[in-house]
Amino acid sequence: MARPISFLSDFGTQDEFVGVVHGVIYRLSPDSRVIDITHGIAPGDVRGGALALTRAIQFVPPGVVLAIVDPGVGTGRKALALETEGGFFVGPDNGLLSPAVAMVGGAGAIHAIENPEVIIEGPGATFAGRDIFAPAAALLASGEATLSDLGPALDPGQVLPLMLPLPKVEQSAIHGEVLWVDWYGNVQTNVGPEEMAEIGMETGESVEVRVGASAHEGRFVATFGDVAMGALAVHVDSAGLIAIAVRGGRAVDELSLAPGRPLSLRRS
Amino acid sequence: MARPISFLSDFGTQDEFVGVVHGVIYRLSPDSRVIDITHGIAPGDVRGGALALTRAIQFVPPGVVLAIVDPGVGTGRKALALETEGGFFVGPDNGLLSPAVAMVGGAGAIHAIENPEVIIEGPGATFAGRDIFAPAAALLASGEATLSDLGPALDPGQVLPLMLPLPKVEQSAIHGEVLWVDWYGNVQTNVGPEEMAEIGMETGESVEVRVGASAHEGRFVATFGDVAMGALAVHVDSAGLIAIAVRGGRAVDELSLAPGRPLSLRRS
Amino acid sequence: MARPISFLSDFGTQDEFVGVVHGVIYRLSPDSRVIDITHGIAPGDVRGGALALTRAIQFVPPGVVLAIVDPGVGTGRKALALETEGGFFVGPDNGLLSPAVAMVGGAGAIHAIENPEVIIEGPGATFAGRDIFAPAAALLASGEATLSDLGPALDPGQVLPLMLPLPKVEQSAIHGEVLWVDWYGNVQTNVGPEEMAEIGMETGESVEVRVGASAHEGRFVATFGDVAMGALAVHVDSAGLIAIAVRGGRAVDELSLAPGRPLSLRRS
Repeated sequence: MARPISFLSDFGTQDEFVGVVHGVIYRLSPDSRVIDITHGIAPGDVRGGALALTRAIQFVPPGVVLAIVDPGVGTGRKALALETEGGFFVGPDNGLLSPAVAMVGGAGAIHAIENPEVIIEGPGATFAGRDIFAPAAALLASGEATLSDLGPALDPGQVLPLMLPLPKVEQSAIHGEVLWVDWYGNVQTNVGPEEMAEIGMETGESVEVRVGASAHEGRFVATFGDVAMGALAVHVDSAGLIAIAVRGGRAVDELSLAPGRPLSLRRS
Repeated sequence: MARPISFLSDFGTQDEFVGVVHGVIYRLSPDSRVIDITHGIAPGDVRGGALALTRAIQFVPPGVVLAIVDPGVGTGRKALALETEGGFFVGPDNGLLSPAVAMVGGAGAIHAIENPEVIIEGPGATFAGRDIFAPAAALLASGEATLSDLGPALDPGQVLPLMLPLPKVEQSAIHGEVLWVDWYGNVQTNVGPEEMAEIGMETGESVEVRVGASAHEGRFVATFGDVAMGALAVHVDSAGLIAIAVRGGRAVDELSLAPGRPLSLRRS
Repeated sequence: MARPISFLSDFGTQDEFVGVVHGVIYRLSPDSRVIDITHGIAPGDVRGGALALTRAIQFVPPGVVLAIVDPGVGTGRKALALETEGGFFVGPDNGLLSPAVAMVGGAGAIHAIENPEVIIEGPGATFAGRDIFAPAAALLASGEATLSDLGPALDPGQVLPLMLPLPKVEQSAIHGEVLWVDWYGNVQTNVGPEEMAEIGMETGESVEVRVGASAHEGRFVATFGDVAMGALAVHVDSAGLIAIAVRGGRAVDELSLAPGRPLSLRRS
């Protein structure tokens, strides 16, 4: 039975890019189910794509992960295929795959996709998703190719990692930053429950969220159902990180935040 | 053979939410086809979701309907699974399922999804789609669970209905409201052909559409091909309701309408 | 085995239109895989849809192509089903199918979909995707219908072609226009490598892109990795046409272009 392929990209839904990749996969591995994780990553946002993939990875089926956020397409960056305990991963060598691969235990073997028999010979060098990544993913999914068939092995040290910011606890404050703003306007930070414990914050207590010069009063709760409508709920989100929500509203707008912006949390 | 799952939500396409639900379903019921009805319901718009589901319901295959528009996630609202002549429905207890369930003949049994063996134990309480609704839908689809396996039976009176506005005919005018504005800018009302008959309106005749203080002249036609370019066509739409279109244009912009806004129709 | 169906439309992702078509297909041909090419064509943009289909056609599997961009729905335009060396095509008679059909070698037989046993009897005449095109595509895919079962044969001369603009070379300049602006802001023209050769342009040389009164300096390169960040790269894109990109930026914004806008290219 062919392996399923879980596919994430920044291709958007306006053009035919996603459909063409599905078409290429179908031609090479017609029995593979393709699960679209999302194609709504902001264009070229490698970090945003890596984080979405990391949040999704334990819920998609073992098989092949195909991830393409590739601002370096048409440059010398390598195309990677690698194997983990959780299946194969295919994508560009720009850090996109790194956190998700780490989360499933790291890569055994890593290969560059360079075999001309695998790559579709097309005009232009701008649609590597179609010409390089999709055929590699499909051949791994169908079992018609092994990693070695795709190209030479690489040393893990040759592959780009992705640096993710760590929160810092100083005296009674946690200094972190925004990792993700979701569709509903909820703001995920890089702060974990362990930092909240480190400053002695307990569920039900008040918490101050500082963004630049402004301070917002919230409550550290199990779920945003525990605060009143319009109030700020600081809670552990579905990925296990501290997130900020406004019940019935959009925290991102009330706090004027965006991915990468710093903030701090402290008892109030 | 596993049942197909027809999936509607307000998850949007920006984040990985839809893909994660597909992943959870695949792991539990790999043979179920998943048909995405839409994930473009406005965030938290229960009525909009209920109406879209109702318009779609007779065209999706019998099996399992999974519908998630859930502004009350993380509060005490129940998670429902129920059975109808047209298959199973899974979703929050906020009225989202009610009109579609009524359209397929009403629910036989209704259960709350509470069995901890069904629910995925994850951090946070904010992604019930992943942790509660998807596993329940998948287990019903695969046949590995019955409604009773998911949790206790509920009385139909315990389940929230959805109140939909009815049009009123007064003298020679129909007073209704906008139910839906579609992607093309067409405006669907809650008025039916029977109200048009009640005021004696016949195909081909002129009709006045009043929105607030402004009146717009249109024609009651079988299809908008029956009016000139730029003219207002009042017609029975693909769901059997009276809709307003501008041929070659966007009625919503010309009439400054939005879902929930009142309007009236009369002979002119 | 049922044929796969590759589906393109301007239905958008906000409403349930795409899901309903999938539902109708599933009911009639449950074993057909449906590949969504895209549903992000601008509403009613027949030329944009035709071009996207043409770019995708050689990568989707042989089977049935279902394409719906249909501003003339509800008028007298015909619904077509036709056969090519690359499989069946189903869609409106407005030029949408023409370039893709030409690319796969032209149509053998062309039929109008008029058989009332094929068409779903629904209220309204505005959702031909659901009522006419989807059932026709599904019955062709399952093998339960032949073209003749759908309706009468048409003469190729009765079918609307799509006129695509040709570039002109005058003295040392190529006069063309914009065909497509993709999600990343890259601008595809109707100019081919043969016109570049005709004016003696060689890879690595400077090229001037004129849009209205303004001139932009670029370089004719194999890929945009060959220019500096922020610089203009004129290159052969993944469809084999001359495209303009800004490395790390959005050419469409820097050049103030849109589909249909004229531009010229010359040596500088």
